[in-house]
Amino acid sequence: MPTLHQDHPVHVLDLGDDENRFSPSWITGVNDLLDVVVQGSEAAALVTTGRGKFFSNGLDLGWLGENGDQAPQYLADVQRLLARLLTLPVPTIAAVNGHAFGAGAMLAMAHDFRIMRADRGYFCFPEVDVTLPFTPGMAALVQAKLTPAAAIAAMTTGRRFDGPTAVATGLVDRTADEAALVATATEAVRPLAGKDRGTLGSIKSTMFAPAAAALLAAAPAVPAR
Amino acid sequence: MPTLHQDHPVHVLDLGDDENRFSPSWITGVNDLLDVVVQGSEAAALVTTGRGKFFSNGLDLGWLGENGDQAPQYLADVQRLLARLLTLPVPTIAAVNGHAFGAGAMLAMAHDFRIMRADRGYFCFPEVDVTLPFTPGMAALVQAKLTPAAAIAAMTTGRRFDGPTAVATGLVDRTADEAALVATATEAVRPLAGKDRGTLGSIKSTMFAPAAAALLAAAPAVPAR
Amino acid sequence: MPTLHQDHPVHVLDLGDDENRFSPSWITGVNDLLDVVVQGSEAAALVTTGRGKFFSNGLDLGWLGENGDQAPQYLADVQRLLARLLTLPVPTIAAVNGHAFGAGAMLAMAHDFRIMRADRGYFCFPEVDVTLPFTPGMAALVQAKLTPAAAIAAMTTGRRFDGPTAVATGLVDRTADEAALVATATEAVRPLAGKDRGTLGSIKSTMFAPAAAALLAAAPAVPAR
Repeated sequence: MPTLHQDHPVHVLDLGDDENRFSPSWITGVNDLLDVVVQGSEAAALVTTGRGKFFSNGLDLGWLGENGDQAPQYLADVQRLLARLLTLPVPTIAAVNGHAFGAGAMLAMAHDFRIMRADRGYFCFPEVDVTLPFTPGMAALVQAKLTPAAAIAAMTTGRRFDGPTAVATGLVDRTADEAALVATATEAVRPLAGKDRGTLGSIKSTMFAPAAAALLAAAPAVPAR
Repeated sequence: MPTLHQDHPVHVLDLGDDENRFSPSWITGVNDLLDVVVQGSEAAALVTTGRGKFFSNGLDLGWLGENGDQAPQYLADVQRLLARLLTLPVPTIAAVNGHAFGAGAMLAMAHDFRIMRADRGYFCFPEVDVTLPFTPGMAALVQAKLTPAAAIAAMTTGRRFDGPTAVATGLVDRTADEAALVATATEAVRPLAGKDRGTLGSIKSTMFAPAAAALLAAAPAVPAR
Repeated sequence: MPTLHQDHPVHVLDLGDDENRFSPSWITGVNDLLDVVVQGSEAAALVTTGRGKFFSNGLDLGWLGENGDQAPQYLADVQRLLARLLTLPVPTIAAVNGHAFGAGAMLAMAHDFRIMRADRGYFCFPEVDVTLPFTPGMAALVQAKLTPAAAIAAMTTGRRFDGPTAVATGLVDRTADEAALVATATEAVRPLAGKDRGTLGSIKSTMFAPAAAALLAAAPAVPAR
């Protein structure tokens, strides 16, 4: 389950040490910890990472298969979390420690910045290969963070990008050795931690208004082929 | 006239060996061949190229001059073809063998990827110099595939980009020797040919919804200064 | 006060030799000179620059503090000037001779191209640090000219970019020595001066329609946290 550690003024959100899929309880756990991150007005910034082989492997397809009737609400919850991170009123960086697939890759894209482990792990949008197209909100989120050429390379091919290739394509900003990943991410946002939450939240909400609105659309259609 | 060759599972669409302008019959020919490409469900991908000096020199201004009363319908047909390629449910790459001007350059931009002959031929949007502004749909198409800086460089200057400059600016992804152009394009999309048409078509339609809608707008205004 | 010099067919708009803030009279002065630049139909292009340490230091906060009741009209005037430059029917380049902050940086972004002094001066959007968020129009303008990664780096951090860093990030196209700055900018747009105003104005208005509309929205809200 997700946990939160403090490296003042930086909050380090640990997504967990398994596949870190978006189960309903995991989503609730992340949201509860984000409540802690944004509360108050002292300096704050967010590093999001995982432990082990995975950053996050995306939607909880196992749970979804057993609870198909709850799919619309589940998808709305996933998209609400992505929209929240996209416009979070503190500086954010994803420290991609391992595989970031599907919604896990979207979670990374929702952060202001991304740094990825250099030697192992893939950044991948497998949607095209699992016949599960992007919802309009999810597509808008990814496209809001990438150049058109990078969006096409990432969203239409199912290609798995290792760290250096992810940097070259523009999916992540830089790479780091695994041992230095979280520290490097922390140092990247530490100087930004003093931003006024109201101002930064307003700026991100304005910049990403179309993507946030698409993610928060009342009844996100369950993606269908 | 356009023809289609098979290099299983890749379809090679040959735009012709002259200027390959968008005459009404040429547009019909291309659409008929695209019907063949997208039909069925076996693996498929599209390479579009021409023979000789031209990829495509754009609108058929000669025909348009003699049939000005049909301009709105003609323009609608051109834009419908561009929208169709933009959202085609198979992977697409333009192998730009020579000059790609105006609507010919737009045709290339409508593909997922672009590869250009290294030594000869120009990629050019001459609209600003022929006092024929982009329609909203055409502008949206080109801007949907380029960074802002590349769009300004390409759309406001009338500059002719040779292969290496087109790569540096981001108009095309890479160059190849003329002799290897179609083979290189074919190998680039061959690994992608197995994508499910419904999924890939849905993804492209979602990603490029604004540009496709602008291209398919009921009554595209004839561009006027 | 702003002045205009001729280097046929290029017009050099000198923003002044002080901080060149957007005072009401300064805005009127710039608009009057732009009237001269766009009138007639002979070849024309625009280089905008300043003298001394500043390109432009942005909004006239001193005036605004004393005239808070006029803030909505003032802001509308600022945004109308930015929209006008964004869609000006002649080629435009900003020769950033020194500090370009806030609305001054937006003024530079509204030009087709940007060249910056290599050795001194900063390009900076301090909005996040002065708790004055971007209006929707101002955000749309800046985002219309930058890649998503560059927009995030520039708009959410308050970072000061020197010339080389501004080039690396994509905020400006190139740098030049101070002594050669205006001459280099002039030579960059001289070959483009012959463009037909009606066509170029239409192309820019189409390309940047959403940003221009947001800037010209009837009642721009005064930014609030």
